[in-house]
Amino acid sequence: MSGREAQRRERLRATAAERGLDAVLVTNLLNVRYLTGFTGSNGALLLRTDGADVLGTDGRYTTQAGTQVPDVELLVDRATVPALASEAVRRGAGRIGYESHEVTVDGHAQLQRVLTDAADGGTVPELVSVQRAVEALRAVKDDDEVDALRRACAVADHALAELAAEGALRPGRTELEVGRELDARMLTLGAEAPSFETIVATGANSAIPHHRPDRTVLAGGDLLKLDFGATVDGYHSDMTRTLVLGHAADWQREVYALVAEAQAAGRAALAVGADVVAVDAAARDVIAAAGHAEHFSHGLGHGVGLEIHEAPGIGPLGAGRLAAGMAVTVEPGVYLPGHGGVRIEDTLVVTADAPELLTLTSKELLVL
Amino acid sequence: MSGREAQRRERLRATAAERGLDAVLVTNLLNVRYLTGFTGSNGALLLRTDGADVLGTDGRYTTQAGTQVPDVELLVDRATVPALASEAVRRGAGRIGYESHEVTVDGHAQLQRVLTDAADGGTVPELVSVQRAVEALRAVKDDDEVDALRRACAVADHALAELAAEGALRPGRTELEVGRELDARMLTLGAEAPSFETIVATGANSAIPHHRPDRTVLAGGDLLKLDFGATVDGYHSDMTRTLVLGHAADWQREVYALVAEAQAAGRAALAVGADVVAVDAAARDVIAAAGHAEHFSHGLGHGVGLEIHEAPGIGPLGAGRLAAGMAVTVEPGVYLPGHGGVRIEDTLVVTADAPELLTLTSKELLVL
Repeated sequence: MSGREAQRRERLRATAAERGLDAVLVTNLLNVRYLTGFTGSNGALLLRTDGADVLGTDGRYTTQAGTQVPDVELLVDRATVPALASEAVRRGAGRIGYESHEVTVDGHAQLQRVLTDAADGGTVPELVSVQRAVEALRAVKDDDEVDALRRACAVADHALAELAAEGALRPGRTELEVGRELDARMLTLGAEAPSFETIVATGANSAIPHHRPDRTVLAGGDLLKLDFGATVDGYHSDMTRTLVLGHAADWQREVYALVAEAQAAGRAALAVGADVVAVDAAARDVIAAAGHAEHFSHGLGHGVGLEIHEAPGIGPLGAGRLAAGMAVTVEPGVYLPGHGGVRIEDTLVVTADAPELLTLTSKELLVL
Repeated sequence: MSGREAQRRERLRATAAERGLDAVLVTNLLNVRYLTGFTGSNGALLLRTDGADVLGTDGRYTTQAGTQVPDVELLVDRATVPALASEAVRRGAGRIGYESHEVTVDGHAQLQRVLTDAADGGTVPELVSVQRAVEALRAVKDDDEVDALRRACAVADHALAELAAEGALRPGRTELEVGRELDARMLTLGAEAPSFETIVATGANSAIPHHRPDRTVLAGGDLLKLDFGATVDGYHSDMTRTLVLGHAADWQREVYALVAEAQAAGRAALAVGADVVAVDAAARDVIAAAGHAEHFSHGLGHGVGLEIHEAPGIGPLGAGRLAAGMAVTVEPGVYLPGHGGVRIEDTLVVTADAPELLTLTSKELLVL
């Protein structure tokens, strides 16, 4: 893996050099993982413009860091971030980038103290925010990342297929039971963890966009909305399917067809250079034209990767354009309060051609 | 649940009043959950000294917040924290406490802007750090919390017992397989999630305190170290057991007996008023007397609750004394690099009498 991570560090190094920084202190743990491959629960990276990077962690992870990141110098210290900051000063850094969206007020004050002490009466280095520089890199996935996402989506696909085939999604069971079985099945199929708290919402609960599964019993004729995903090698899949138990009523078929049409329009709008507001509108306009504008109360989608929600956001309030390699969800919904709701969601990768669909479960209305 | 949460808010209110604050803006999501019972993924609490609290969240959680927190006024706004800060100013707060260990540098700058705007030319309210005021309250568990921890520990106990009874812990299987089965079984038994990334370490890997399960195959005669826990109602259990597969060698029995003796000494030292450094020493001295001081490379234990690691820390560098109701782990280990290691860990609650043991799996050396 280290070749990929070295390439990512070079990209950040170029950004840092452009901004006149001598070093960047990366403290967001997912950003550290992205840039080094290190997966321990404590780590920070001192990325230096001159190329001599240092990975910091504590004694619990000495062996793991050596194995996962053989090509970066290791500094083992219980006070990891202060130790890296001191090291930066010792090596002569004058302008040090840091992640102001990640470092807390207390953490910043501690860093200032450490830099002042380490300067030892000399010029104290300046702390400069790099904003979300690493997150911006992370928005565009490389092949290894797309591969991990593909495998994460496959686990979720298979888990749902197995449960449906076994009759686990039947009237009489509770939302909680279904959710736990889905989670357990994903682990058995190779997930490290569910991507987020699995949503199982049946009947009127399906009209609540983010319903937490409870003891509500699945009943014949009800909608059943499942929003779930698997984490594989740190990457998160995200998929929603809405089924009907038993016989589908006309209103259910109509709402389903509408959401499916909107979702197809949203997927079709995923193109290199597309404005995220326009992508959202492509799906939203379909729903609005059917008179349900107020029943689609959230954005169309979001980036997925090392986090379940990351850049880019695709919604009316978003900003920016899609690029090849971005992995995003497309998930319109129509929610009729007290009645029921339908959401259909895929994870896809933007490419120069048609987007690559990673969640392969059928989007035909499944009547179980 | 709301009775408990109201009591917790009154405790924080007393602290806030003592410090001369008009309000506290609680932004740590677990602290918000602790103080209100709200479990959504976005929420903040404006706790006011005059008793008129406001819970903030966004539109996804309107229904859930109303159900979970019926006794606190709700403010629904996409920009939750700024909206609560404006509200504080509107209601006349002059000194507002905030969590400086939690609010980022960017978040603090945004808060300052919001307060300045909301003051509208008048006196801008002062932001005052409350340090870890809520975490300090959380260190002492109430009955509901102890009950949740008890149930979380029971899930872990049962999952291990079932896997052992089914022969799942046998030579030929990989660490990864065992870890995933343990995780899946905990979910089936009612866990929301594993408490942390389950550690399965066999043979020489058992000498690595925090080994990540990999494709290493379990072999006869090897140690097998399992460190895992279940999350139930948001509360985390934590337990380590070390077994031997097949026949136990003399050195394995000796190390095991030493760690078991140290662990018993650590448990016996858990008393109201005990200094955390002395508790650590009670176990560490046993290991040091046997000549293994350098093979016990971490602290003795830590608090558990809504986080897997929380106050109090029990180790050579800790500070403070135990109080009745604190839930802590006791987890000495002896790790012989390249050879193997043993750790034995329980979760217990400090009481005026003997500590209550929550992890009930036997600590006899289990030879499978």
